[in-house]
Amino acid sequence: MLTLSSDFGSPYPAAVKGVLSQKTTARVVDIGHDFPRGDVGAAAFWLREILPYYPPATHLAAIDPGVGTDRRAIVVRAGEHALVGPDNGVLYPPARALAVSTDGDLESFEIDESATETDLLEIPRGPATTDGNRTNDRSVTFHARDVFAPAAATVHETPPDRLDSIAGLSHVDMESLVKETIPTASVETDPDRARGEVLVVDDFGNVITNVPGAFLADRESIEANGRRIPVEAAFASVPPGDRLATVGEHGYVELDVNDGRGDEAFSLERGDDVVLEP
Amino acid sequence: MLTLSSDFGSPYPAAVKGVLSQKTTARVVDIGHDFPRGDVGAAAFWLREILPYYPPATHLAAIDPGVGTDRRAIVVRAGEHALVGPDNGVLYPPARALAVSTDGDLESFEIDESATETDLLEIPRGPATTDGNRTNDRSVTFHARDVFAPAAATVHETPPDRLDSIAGLSHVDMESLVKETIPTASVETDPDRARGEVLVVDDFGNVITNVPGAFLADRESIEANGRRIPVEAAFASVPPGDRLATVGEHGYVELDVNDGRGDEAFSLERGDDVVLEP
Amino acid sequence: MLTLSSDFGSPYPAAVKGVLSQKTTARVVDIGHDFPRGDVGAAAFWLREILPYYPPATHLAAIDPGVGTDRRAIVVRAGEHALVGPDNGVLYPPARALAVSTDGDLESFEIDESATETDLLEIPRGPATTDGNRTNDRSVTFHARDVFAPAAATVHETPPDRLDSIAGLSHVDMESLVKETIPTASVETDPDRARGEVLVVDDFGNVITNVPGAFLADRESIEANGRRIPVEAAFASVPPGDRLATVGEHGYVELDVNDGRGDEAFSLERGDDVVLEP
Repeated sequence: MLTLSSDFGSPYPAAVKGVLSQKTTARVVDIGHDFPRGDVGAAAFWLREILPYYPPATHLAAIDPGVGTDRRAIVVRAGEHALVGPDNGVLYPPARALAVSTDGDLESFEIDESATETDLLEIPRGPATTDGNRTNDRSVTFHARDVFAPAAATVHETPPDRLDSIAGLSHVDMESLVKETIPTASVETDPDRARGEVLVVDDFGNVITNVPGAFLADRESIEANGRRIPVEAAFASVPPGDRLATVGEHGYVELDVNDGRGDEAFSLERGDDVVLEP
Repeated sequence: MLTLSSDFGSPYPAAVKGVLSQKTTARVVDIGHDFPRGDVGAAAFWLREILPYYPPATHLAAIDPGVGTDRRAIVVRAGEHALVGPDNGVLYPPARALAVSTDGDLESFEIDESATETDLLEIPRGPATTDGNRTNDRSVTFHARDVFAPAAATVHETPPDRLDSIAGLSHVDMESLVKETIPTASVETDPDRARGEVLVVDDFGNVITNVPGAFLADRESIEANGRRIPVEAAFASVPPGDRLATVGEHGYVELDVNDGRGDEAFSLERGDDVVLEP
Repeated sequence: MLTLSSDFGSPYPAAVKGVLSQKTTARVVDIGHDFPRGDVGAAAFWLREILPYYPPATHLAAIDPGVGTDRRAIVVRAGEHALVGPDNGVLYPPARALAVSTDGDLESFEIDESATETDLLEIPRGPATTDGNRTNDRSVTFHARDVFAPAAATVHETPPDRLDSIAGLSHVDMESLVKETIPTASVETDPDRARGEVLVVDDFGNVITNVPGAFLADRESIEANGRRIPVEAAFASVPPGDRLATVGEHGYVELDVNDGRGDEAFSLERGDDVVLEP
């Protein structure tokens, strides 16, 4: 199984899937193609939360605002999983999460983008050049299709412990990778206070903070940025349109509105500071 | 085959698919993830219209505004099909539609959500808890991933006539289920008049009413809420921007605009009254 | 493998997939369902660019503003590929692109839409008619589900060189098809100047013109509609918010903004004239 994540919208992911399907018959599952555009941190958060629910798979993640610059293209093996994408941090948090069950068994490789003579980057089919507008060169702006997809398919068809046998992949130190990290909240106990930030806002408008859900334990209400709101387990525990704090499915504190948008009610967006008090 | 329907947008459905793929290799088809948020009736309508086009399958439907409250989680077997989701009415109309070809062969079960020791709700893989923010408890707000998905995969791997052998499922009376019903129009013959309502507005802006298409038979025009419009078989029979009444693919009267939005032209939205006259 | 393209949004494509899955177990890949509504030329451009990245497949393309009128329903064989959809031009450019690798091996067929007794258009399952609103007749407005889907599944299950054995398909001359053509830019050399137009605007807001990328070769900047902008290989070569000209992955000149929308910055939309000068 392969998974595919991007900030491409539509229809570019279909070209990526075409290339994958030339080189592997494995199933391709879309994680999402509307990740916030160019936002490496938000994508890293979502992939860290979602990919661990998958069986061993090859995960292509194309959130790549630096495409065409000299940022590296990499493969990270995390236990039986592999991740393929740009070395801009987007792969680092999910790779670490996927490796937890194998005691941190991580290995990383750089893709030699000039290795066009190898199987790694081979794309057997593509548009012809008869209309004069297209060259056979790899594009500068669509590496998901022209680099990551052929590489991911080749990786997928190779046993995880044999990735170093692939011509065009060379070992690099995990420590050399760009490490996007999900910021950590600071939780103080005297007085009780959590200082964190908004990690992402989801499609419902739910404001997902980085404050661990434990902060809400045994509390009936909290002050969120100075406003008192009830602590509830379920959205429907408050009337439609009312605010609440809850522990989201990821284990963090969310600031939400039942049948409404928390981001609008709290005037919060990604990266904003959040202070929670009893 | 499994199908997946929700009002989640993106990327939450990807976590649901991850859980499914841990427990079954069956194909998963997305019916849609942008059903109107929390609108059980609209989802019930669409699923009743679409699911009968599928071969026998397990259908997971997560339109669940009461998630985390004491509404039941259920499985409904409809002939060779099974439906899994909340007992809030969303499963009832499609289950009845799927059972028509088997003379109403319906059977329903409650999922024991506390049966975490059984195969039914087992999720072999998931995020680890090392960063302190996550517990091993099932989430309160994401039952699609934590209850419906493992249950649907288990149901899918079980022969339809053996669902009662699954530990954690217990028979309940179909009559005990919440019955969302698609409202019926009243069609009067003296004088000719249909009083109905807007069932849904689709992505094109087409206004789908609950007036049976037969009302348009042999008419060249009708009055819709007091405005005279032509009756046509095809959108392109009127100029771009013009209104028309037609029989939609579901057999109901639609109020549409060729190359435009009917909801805006007629100032109608879901639930609004519609009166059609010759 | 089958691919599916439409301007339907959601959830109508799910009904199409249901019909396909009744008649074939082949995988179905979504190319996209948010092609610009009713815009045959834009869809033809995207399909011409994307489908050649696929292995041999059957491609259903339902961008069909004339559905229900007397436009023909057709099948085009292009080498080992087949395309199914309306005869409105949307299939012509991708069919020609798919046939390049087989020296223009093209063949076309009309679907006899009245051939309801044949396997070609058979749909074994569908909603029952018990609620009185539905007839067994094929819909006038949803041929993707009721004509193209059963035909595409039948075509897919037939060897490409045996399509003429399918009852309900009859040979028609390729020359008789509606030929949507992608407009060509005029490139003048004395003085240097390219006169073209905007082919499409993509989801990023990138303005894709029909000027061949070669026009940018060895230039450090150009004037686009009178405004001087740098020529760059990568978006990230200019600061966020700045304009650039680049050669897109399709080989054409794009007018873009790094981390922003080119269509807004240049005030350009599909079909607008573009003049590029040194």
